[in-house]
Amino acid sequence: MPLAFRQPVLLWHRDDAVLRELLERLRSTLPQIGCRVDAERIDPNWDAARDGALRERLAAHGTDLGIVLGGDGTLLAAVRILGPLDVPLLCINLGRLGFLADISPNETFDVLPTILGGEFCAEDRLILDIELHREGRLLRTVSALNELVLHKWDSLKMVEFETRAGGRLLNRQRADGVIVATPTGSTAYALSSGGPILYPDMRAVVVVPICQHTLAIRPMVLGADQPLEIELTQDNWSKARLVCDGQQSVPLEIGDRVVIRARERSLRLIHPVGYDYFELLRTKLHWGG
Amino acid sequence: MPLAFRQPVLLWHRDDAVLRELLERLRSTLPQIGCRVDAERIDPNWDAARDGALRERLAAHGTDLGIVLGGDGTLLAAVRILGPLDVPLLCINLGRLGFLADISPNETFDVLPTILGGEFCAEDRLILDIELHREGRLLRTVSALNELVLHKWDSLKMVEFETRAGGRLLNRQRADGVIVATPTGSTAYALSSGGPILYPDMRAVVVVPICQHTLAIRPMVLGADQPLEIELTQDNWSKARLVCDGQQSVPLEIGDRVVIRARERSLRLIHPVGYDYFELLRTKLHWGG
Amino acid sequence: MPLAFRQPVLLWHRDDAVLRELLERLRSTLPQIGCRVDAERIDPNWDAARDGALRERLAAHGTDLGIVLGGDGTLLAAVRILGPLDVPLLCINLGRLGFLADISPNETFDVLPTILGGEFCAEDRLILDIELHREGRLLRTVSALNELVLHKWDSLKMVEFETRAGGRLLNRQRADGVIVATPTGSTAYALSSGGPILYPDMRAVVVVPICQHTLAIRPMVLGADQPLEIELTQDNWSKARLVCDGQQSVPLEIGDRVVIRARERSLRLIHPVGYDYFELLRTKLHWGG
Amino acid sequence: MPLAFRQPVLLWHRDDAVLRELLERLRSTLPQIGCRVDAERIDPNWDAARDGALRERLAAHGTDLGIVLGGDGTLLAAVRILGPLDVPLLCINLGRLGFLADISPNETFDVLPTILGGEFCAEDRLILDIELHREGRLLRTVSALNELVLHKWDSLKMVEFETRAGGRLLNRQRADGVIVATPTGSTAYALSSGGPILYPDMRAVVVVPICQHTLAIRPMVLGADQPLEIELTQDNWSKARLVCDGQQSVPLEIGDRVVIRARERSLRLIHPVGYDYFELLRTKLHWGG
Repeated sequence: MPLAFRQPVLLWHRDDAVLRELLERLRSTLPQIGCRVDAERIDPNWDAARDGALRERLAAHGTDLGIVLGGDGTLLAAVRILGPLDVPLLCINLGRLGFLADISPNETFDVLPTILGGEFCAEDRLILDIELHREGRLLRTVSALNELVLHKWDSLKMVEFETRAGGRLLNRQRADGVIVATPTGSTAYALSSGGPILYPDMRAVVVVPICQHTLAIRPMVLGADQPLEIELTQDNWSKARLVCDGQQSVPLEIGDRVVIRARERSLRLIHPVGYDYFELLRTKLHWGG
Repeated sequence: MPLAFRQPVLLWHRDDAVLRELLERLRSTLPQIGCRVDAERIDPNWDAARDGALRERLAAHGTDLGIVLGGDGTLLAAVRILGPLDVPLLCINLGRLGFLADISPNETFDVLPTILGGEFCAEDRLILDIELHREGRLLRTVSALNELVLHKWDSLKMVEFETRAGGRLLNRQRADGVIVATPTGSTAYALSSGGPILYPDMRAVVVVPICQHTLAIRPMVLGADQPLEIELTQDNWSKARLVCDGQQSVPLEIGDRVVIRARERSLRLIHPVGYDYFELLRTKLHWGG
Repeated sequence: MPLAFRQPVLLWHRDDAVLRELLERLRSTLPQIGCRVDAERIDPNWDAARDGALRERLAAHGTDLGIVLGGDGTLLAAVRILGPLDVPLLCINLGRLGFLADISPNETFDVLPTILGGEFCAEDRLILDIELHREGRLLRTVSALNELVLHKWDSLKMVEFETRAGGRLLNRQRADGVIVATPTGSTAYALSSGGPILYPDMRAVVVVPICQHTLAIRPMVLGADQPLEIELTQDNWSKARLVCDGQQSVPLEIGDRVVIRARERSLRLIHPVGYDYFELLRTKLHWGG
Repeated sequence: MPLAFRQPVLLWHRDDAVLRELLERLRSTLPQIGCRVDAERIDPNWDAARDGALRERLAAHGTDLGIVLGGDGTLLAAVRILGPLDVPLLCINLGRLGFLADISPNETFDVLPTILGGEFCAEDRLILDIELHREGRLLRTVSALNELVLHKWDSLKMVEFETRAGGRLLNRQRADGVIVATPTGSTAYALSSGGPILYPDMRAVVVVPICQHTLAIRPMVLGADQPLEIELTQDNWSKARLVCDGQQSVPLEIGDRVVIRARERSLRLIHPVGYDYFELLRTKLHWGG
């Protein structure tokens, strides 16, 4: 049988007995069906240099699939590292039921050979590329699968910011912060802050204020193909940070502009055949009734 | 100057001195720039036969633009009548500031010749085609620019319904009702019920429950290109109605299925150059700060 | 052992095998510990004459405790009927877990003799007395344990109403309706409409708008000792109804005034020792985590 | 005319031309009607030692009224300083319209003599006394007129905490934080986070989670006469702070317990005759329609 993926990398963070057993079994089993397997421990904590080195190493190996062993947090770290290589990911869930990590350890050895053989359900998820501009210069580039958050930080005061879409002013407001979430992130932090759920295949983002001062301001959904821009306004006397996927955090200064664009090539998530997003919603959010 | 529109029809409902003066002036002015003008009074109250007769008459005349004199309600009636002819609409606002009716009577005679001459800002708005199926038969077809609502009616009890998207079960829930809104309708009833705002150019709908029993169920945004289906479930002991754009209302029975599809050709709204949707949001919703 | 209650009445509505067995067993058991037992079928559907006749009969018998066999709906009917007699109630739950009906059939025969003997946890719950005034005349009096709702009815339009507290204008707004809920009702319909939960011992009500037009209007909690008044305003072109506890429903006309007062004597609910309201919240609302 | 207040102190923070003129005029005018006037600049930034020294000085002078010249923030500082002396406060508003600061500079010299003469509208507002306990010891005591917030701080992670009321577990949850607000504070930060409004005369608090993980958890209103307790639970891996009235901020550690009690003696706010809280709501929150 020709394989759809020949060079997977096993990625994990939390190191315990369950992980080790699974890791060992995968390392011994996958070569039997013709795969060469790499394995790397990754870290949810952000370290651009370390991330970059691992990315280069895997690119050199010809990695064509990331197999994450962990929960949604480990997957987010894997996306941060592998995303730029345009490598698809699947996730064996070692945590609580996750929205992204949907293969249970029990079914792994039933399901994985089928997937590697090419029978699977692929789902493309929007990734955001985020630029931080200060005083006219591009200071930093980060990316996010779930969301970016601009949040007051180490401060008692609200932040004030202007949001622009496609170059036009949406509004200027004061709040504890603001979330720009992808469809993937719409079931994460944005949901806690009152945002709607976006079906995963949408090329759209939702802008959700956090504890906004003006009660009438509501979450807003926009097509992802116009750039969004959030600027910390000058009469802002608070401190703030930019946080991506709950892992990457950058301090902001007054006048900073955060520019958000949808990456043209999405992340490809690999699910077993029969994957049902709605069932996940009903189970995770107790919609079952 | 060659005209972009040669055969406009003036459509109004509320008949008062302001309307009459405006109507007279338009009837005498527009021919001077080369238009042939029709004028018809229309009715927000739904009458499929009357609507159809007017539609045929205007089609026979070669109507190529609807000029609505009134508020959002009159525009919704105009869409109901003219929508199937694929004729663009513009709206001179005689009511309170509307989201759709954005030309003020004062600026009409400045702005209208420019628009008729071909300088304008066109915006395509999603229209929903809605089928009501009962016992396996298609009972009725209606359409909506804002939203359809399935609501308990003449009853003290919640309704119970199942929602499907693309043939797959989203959920089964009990609530006072459920709204399926277009981006246009996202600033209307859906907003009152806790829905997000969708930017007008999106081919998406938002499903918003009304006073749902299960607190965790939230508004959900879906791409408009998969059909949605809402079914009143069998153990439903309540009465309900389907209401479109707050104007068309059809009684429902247990087991009825409502199938919602986005019409392929959207409604074209014509605005003066310089139209800014975000400014409308800031003004109408007091987002100004 | 002297009994705390000597003349209980068993009240039920849904008549099935489980009910009958329980009813029979109570009828044969309770006399053994010294009670005289009445039993009456009651109806959630409102019939003031029938309710009144039953109330008189029970008053004549010296009923000193209502034992409801059913769910929250049956208890609400029992309150409607027995409330004016100032008789405490307890509820053996034959439905799904209820906020009010908290004794399971299994524990009934353990728990009931203890309660009848005087060991129990008593909880006083606010009852609302509601007057409907039309053209200066008192038209009708109803009461509610959960809430009263003023709701649009058989109509596509919002209702417009003014709310006054202690004679002073709170606001004038348009909405699908408005709920005035007691602490008991704060976990029922008012919760679905975005209201907060009020701890049961509070002498307070919460006013919760339903799908209000003005986004900034929020639920408001007021002490129960100033009368509230809601008036359907003159420029109201919609139809509306007053609904109490989801059981009593009265059509309203423009200009009608609904005056709401807390009854001085609350309803006494009897629970087994160890009753924990917070545990009920955690279980019923899935707050457990 | 005998005076109701003989020894007022003028309290301000922001020092500008408007303030100075008003201050000078009050200092020259008030002695003419028989008052001895103190004047002190105060600071919204918290300094327990400085606050205490000023409190003692004013107590020694027999201060019987605080006249705040500023906005809600300056009033909150005045409450922090003068609250323990049980001295009433009134507030001349030099900022934007405030909920608490309701006398405009223009009407000051009309209104103030009447108030000092004893014609006014007094309103008692609940004050919270808050204890921070660590490892069994009382570490700190603070107070709040608006609210206390327990919020994640300098951290990407939610906090986890248990809430108890009257010694019984309400729930254990994860969130960005939690607010316990008085009726006064219910129109401030708690409102931004989805809380209801509590009428100012209530002896009640509302517990409002901030961006909670469990969607079904809702704001809860409780009578103020049972102590509330919030404990940062042991498996909490985040950092957090306790913030009172947006001015006093104390770092928290895992296992810390925050105990909240309503002070028996409330703060007395002095308003001109004709004061209408509901009008304030309509104006400030744009409820006017």
